[in-house]
Amino acid sequence: MNLRRRTWEIVEAAKPGDTASRVFDVLILTLIFLNVIAVILGSIQSIEERWSAFLETFETVSVLVFSIEYVSRLWSCTADSRFSGIIRGRLRLAIKAMPIIDLLAILPFYLPFLGIDLMSLRAFRLFRIFRIAKVGRYYSSLNIIRDVFHAKREQLALTLAMMGILLVVSSTLLYYCENEVQPEVFSSIPATMWWAVATLTTVGYGDIYPITLLGRFLASIIAILGIGMFALPTGILGAGFIEAIQKKKEGTQICPHCGKEIHNGKRN
Amino acid sequence: MNLRRRTWEIVEAAKPGDTASRVFDVLILTLIFLNVIAVILGSIQSIEERWSAFLETFETVSVLVFSIEYVSRLWSCTADSRFSGIIRGRLRLAIKAMPIIDLLAILPFYLPFLGIDLMSLRAFRLFRIFRIAKVGRYYSSLNIIRDVFHAKREQLALTLAMMGILLVVSSTLLYYCENEVQPEVFSSIPATMWWAVATLTTVGYGDIYPITLLGRFLASIIAILGIGMFALPTGILGAGFIEAIQKKKEGTQICPHCGKEIHNGKRN
Amino acid sequence: MNLRRRTWEIVEAAKPGDTASRVFDVLILTLIFLNVIAVILGSIQSIEERWSAFLETFETVSVLVFSIEYVSRLWSCTADSRFSGIIRGRLRLAIKAMPIIDLLAILPFYLPFLGIDLMSLRAFRLFRIFRIAKVGRYYSSLNIIRDVFHAKREQLALTLAMMGILLVVSSTLLYYCENEVQPEVFSSIPATMWWAVATLTTVGYGDIYPITLLGRFLASIIAILGIGMFALPTGILGAGFIEAIQKKKEGTQICPHCGKEIHNGKRN
Amino acid sequence: MNLRRRTWEIVEAAKPGDTASRVFDVLILTLIFLNVIAVILGSIQSIEERWSAFLETFETVSVLVFSIEYVSRLWSCTADSRFSGIIRGRLRLAIKAMPIIDLLAILPFYLPFLGIDLMSLRAFRLFRIFRIAKVGRYYSSLNIIRDVFHAKREQLALTLAMMGILLVVSSTLLYYCENEVQPEVFSSIPATMWWAVATLTTVGYGDIYPITLLGRFLASIIAILGIGMFALPTGILGAGFIEAIQKKKEGTQICPHCGKEIHNGKRN
Repeated sequence: MNLRRRTWEIVEAAKPGDTASRVFDVLILTLIFLNVIAVILGSIQSIEERWSAFLETFETVSVLVFSIEYVSRLWSCTADSRFSGIIRGRLRLAIKAMPIIDLLAILPFYLPFLGIDLMSLRAFRLFRIFRIAKVGRYYSSLNIIRDVFHAKREQLALTLAMMGILLVVSSTLLYYCENEVQPEVFSSIPATMWWAVATLTTVGYGDIYPITLLGRFLASIIAILGIGMFALPTGILGAGFIEAIQKKKEGTQICPHCGKEIHNGKRN
Repeated sequence: MNLRRRTWEIVEAAKPGDTASRVFDVLILTLIFLNVIAVILGSIQSIEERWSAFLETFETVSVLVFSIEYVSRLWSCTADSRFSGIIRGRLRLAIKAMPIIDLLAILPFYLPFLGIDLMSLRAFRLFRIFRIAKVGRYYSSLNIIRDVFHAKREQLALTLAMMGILLVVSSTLLYYCENEVQPEVFSSIPATMWWAVATLTTVGYGDIYPITLLGRFLASIIAILGIGMFALPTGILGAGFIEAIQKKKEGTQICPHCGKEIHNGKRN
Repeated sequence: MNLRRRTWEIVEAAKPGDTASRVFDVLILTLIFLNVIAVILGSIQSIEERWSAFLETFETVSVLVFSIEYVSRLWSCTADSRFSGIIRGRLRLAIKAMPIIDLLAILPFYLPFLGIDLMSLRAFRLFRIFRIAKVGRYYSSLNIIRDVFHAKREQLALTLAMMGILLVVSSTLLYYCENEVQPEVFSSIPATMWWAVATLTTVGYGDIYPITLLGRFLASIIAILGIGMFALPTGILGAGFIEAIQKKKEGTQICPHCGKEIHNGKRN
Repeated sequence: MNLRRRTWEIVEAAKPGDTASRVFDVLILTLIFLNVIAVILGSIQSIEERWSAFLETFETVSVLVFSIEYVSRLWSCTADSRFSGIIRGRLRLAIKAMPIIDLLAILPFYLPFLGIDLMSLRAFRLFRIFRIAKVGRYYSSLNIIRDVFHAKREQLALTLAMMGILLVVSSTLLYYCENEVQPEVFSSIPATMWWAVATLTTVGYGDIYPITLLGRFLASIIAILGIGMFALPTGILGAGFIEAIQKKKEGTQICPHCGKEIHNGKRN
């Protein structure tokens, strides 16, 4: 039981003063980082050909370490009151976002042994990068950014919904304008959506654009509305950051002369 | 009369507790959503060829449902004091934005029966998507966004007007710079406007761009001014969101002289 | 003298209640607007060929009206205490921004008669569009926008200066990276500046882009810094708009209960 | 010793009233500016060929002046209490950012004499432009911008880190989607990063873009997330500017209980 509790403390984010746990965290994060580098470099043919043996060994070792960490976490979690219960507690942990990501990151390695071989599954290794989110708990700034997104989630979701509607309407209009003249490029509404995304986000690759007069006129209006797609979330987030700062400042203040409270909260 | 009032309650946005009306709203919105999906999928040739019978049937059923809803609304609206008067009340409803959209969305289906057949009218079916705006009344966030746009409408309109002037001036200058060298592309000022929109919104498709030295110099200045086209509405909307929050927060303040409450709302 | 004062009142922006002056303003603005339309339409070859006689007549009439207005303004300005002095007063008016624009807009018409014929001077006709700025005084919103730009002029100028430095440094670096591989496209630092503007403003036409590894790496960093070029002016202007609103709100407030002043200024 | 102190005063930024030092500052800045112009113009082949003698002479004179300035600074710095100590003091100055830039700007000129000849080192001459930062101390606006960046450095760094993660994840996903269909363009993950930067910053050159259905779908989501890359730093900086203004405005407040002043600075 003592070993289990200690294991749990180590695999979890380190508490201040717990050096062993801190070292473990740093080692795991370094390994995650190196794995990401390995995936990136392994995609370069010349490197892949030359270092394939090394990269494969590194991959095997990494997955082993991650597997041990995953199993340890699952085994020791019952030491935490939040995950008590031999099966129920472990299930409760397993269905959390982070452990699912951890599992998705190691699973592709074992699947071939089970007779399943999906090349594309290798991309799942990249999931490990999301574990970097763990570092987040050491930075209060990340909390502010998360709080702002949380406080404004409804407004931001609405902005996304508006974008969606604008996307559908733009694509349909442009499809009807351009389909006859450019049947290859504006072949269907979903195909035109690729144009609409490139225009509304102002990326504008230039692989697809209207050539008819009406199409260009509508595209101009859509592009200008695309500015709103930047302005709206920026305005919402900007207001959110200011609110977050004011909230922190608020509260009661003590007058240094008479020692009484002044309620500033009402003034803001 | 009782049936008329009940019909009106059902076709209108549901009041809290009115389950029948709520169910009706959800059904209609689902149908709108499915219609949009059908229009999008119907534009893909392979799907259109394979499922044309199904899509046509779905279209007929949808229009029927929307027609019944439209007529019910028009028939029952007199139950509402705002639309009293057998003809005047109904006319007052019919010329509102939403019912006009509803009509435009169903009309193209009936026109061929009247001998009018306009392929392009099918795009009007998309108008149904705007009816999604009805969901808006359930979300207070949408009200905030609308309020901000309303409070800042004059400043935003001015920004649009400045964009317009910048657009005209840019196009004319670039037309005089590039017309001689690229007579095919910069063929006229309206044609050059297509370039100006792509540049000022920073979309930059790359189908048309200046090649003369003076043209590139002017285009550079115009592109940098284009940044202002993002910064200005963003700044205006950002300030609007902060104002909206402060207005909501402002409540009562205690006067330090007499100790009574002051309702700050009066100051704004 | 009375006629002179009345003329001055009419050619100047209308004071409330002065219907004649108001009508004059509206007529001149309409004429300016029509002139802009004429310049734009006149650039379309098919229209130019068909309507050249009409467009030329319209141009002649317009210049005549604008000339009469300009001369009237110059003649009557001495009625205003700001422009007293038969020559000095008129000169003081003539060197103001608006009258210079007015002159530049009509001068190209007369130059051919003096033996000077510069096709490109026709673009000057477009200067008339800037006279639309006159409408500005009727809108308080424009004043807010102008005030914000004025209050933040130093910070905005610095942002522009930073952009300039970033532009020069980016262009030089990319020139040294790409010149050897793409000597035609990245032919000199000024030529590379065209790339740098397109990248920093995120327009990205795609007519010129790096292909070397180092070039792409540097271009990536520059493109990300380009985001700062949007964020900085937006942040500055956003703060400016909020300040402008708070300034308006500030001042002294009267407690409605005891009638004494509460100095809110100190709190903000 | 007196000469040393005076030299130090002159090479450092001028104090108010010190005309000689001011003149020196202006001359050096003008020379920096002319050097930048010379580097830019020298890259244009036709100018380089015609004016090479003049440009080379100008370069030699410039480096001489900058060398004298650098040596003078190093010699006289011991007059300043911050850099006391014949060797330690000078080293402490030499490893500061500005003197390193100064050295990097003149060193490439001397290296050929030492047998080292690197063409690319000529780009280092551009480093001189960074010395323009010295003008900064005369402008309080620059301090505000610097303060805002400093106060928000952690949040901005986090935004950059998020961009980095998004970049890696986007590139890997798109590489797995497009590599098979476009093996030449999406040849490796680092190659795909070039696409990801162009998309996330909304530059969109159009030299590389997805063509598969899944690739376009993912690219659309990535492009929309790219909007967040603009919105987040803009919101953070906007809030920073507003805070900076509020801090400046905050002064003394009167405690309503005892009537004494409270220095609000303490609360922030």
